[in-house]
Amino acid sequence: MTVSTPDKSVASIRWLKAPTSWSWVEQANACPVEVLIDHAHCERKAAGSAVQMMFRYLCEPGLGEVLSPLAREELEHFEQVLVVIKARGRYLEPLPSPGYGAELAKHIRKAEPHRMLDSFLVAGLIEARSHERMALLAEHSPDPELRQLYGDLLTSEARHFGLYWTLAESRWSREVIKPRLEELAEHESRALDGKLDDPQDVRMHSVGIQS
Amino acid sequence: MTVSTPDKSVASIRWLKAPTSWSWVEQANACPVEVLIDHAHCERKAAGSAVQMMFRYLCEPGLGEVLSPLAREELEHFEQVLVVIKARGRYLEPLPSPGYGAELAKHIRKAEPHRMLDSFLVAGLIEARSHERMALLAEHSPDPELRQLYGDLLTSEARHFGLYWTLAESRWSREVIKPRLEELAEHESRALDGKLDDPQDVRMHSVGIQS
Repeated sequence: MTVSTPDKSVASIRWLKAPTSWSWVEQANACPVEVLIDHAHCERKAAGSAVQMMFRYLCEPGLGEVLSPLAREELEHFEQVLVVIKARGRYLEPLPSPGYGAELAKHIRKAEPHRMLDSFLVAGLIEARSHERMALLAEHSPDPELRQLYGDLLTSEARHFGLYWTLAESRWSREVIKPRLEELAEHESRALDGKLDDPQDVRMHSVGIQS
Repeated sequence: MTVSTPDKSVASIRWLKAPTSWSWVEQANACPVEVLIDHAHCERKAAGSAVQMMFRYLCEPGLGEVLSPLAREELEHFEQVLVVIKARGRYLEPLPSPGYGAELAKHIRKAEPHRMLDSFLVAGLIEARSHERMALLAEHSPDPELRQLYGDLLTSEARHFGLYWTLAESRWSREVIKPRLEELAEHESRALDGKLDDPQDVRMHSVGIQS
């Protein structure tokens, strides 16, 4: 399988330790509305996570200026995806989670300033993985409306890994950031093996990387 | 004191049990940057509260469609206010709280569906009070830039009480909503007597209603 992605995405995706498997793409294409609903939840959670970081590091210079517009963009995407879900006769539904976010959160160190660095890098890695999988759907979904939707969302999502990277880089040296990003990227790939009760279920962050 | 407010604001402000005192306006005009910083925190907290409600009532039809754009608008205001704070050589700083929000939160009943109704009404009342005080500053600040800023923010803030009211009205009858709103509005006025350690301090929701 050859996957072409927009130029901007290459920089972020290279941090991922293992690329998504073709079987994930096939599974996602077989359940497009479930993936859409899950994606709406992902956008909502990404916004919540940015807002939560703004609250935690209230007076940290230069943080609100980056995280607030990022949260707004995630919320705007949530609304866009919700319109498509409703047009298909469905709504936000609670979906069993593959536990990817919870698994990754375990690797965020508790003590500051490590906690801040890890929070940026984990948020960035989640963005990178979402972006990689959205690029796959933008290219390989059999549904033209979904190819268009994921393609549209991609163009701005592509920046988000970069924003978290820049937040880290303006506070720590590359010598500190890069080895930690490598470690967390290993955890990220391993976090993608969360099993769902129903093996037919598919999520933006469910099992499916090239072994 | 005669205070003229935009037409749109009248509907929301009439729910407030006691109008703001002139002494609050004088105090706020004496500490414009503290009030701005506090206002940035209020916008951030209003966004956080809308996002929190979206999370709590994940699958409630028609909620995300209203709360997500509202949260985006609050975040946009946060960013606008932050620009003005920075232009004045300051940044977000932690400010001792008069305890208004925490006091109001105590009156949100714990059990559903009361919790949802009370959450909408309390959020609406906080918007109404913010709107009332912003209208006062938009008219009576001696600083033209601040009059302009608060006036600009007002035009969209004026809608927020209405949005929370509509969320309540589409789920409960007026016979249920109105008496509860009356009760909560009493609590809202009383919550405005939170004392700060330094009596010179002023906040968007610090002491100052007409007795």
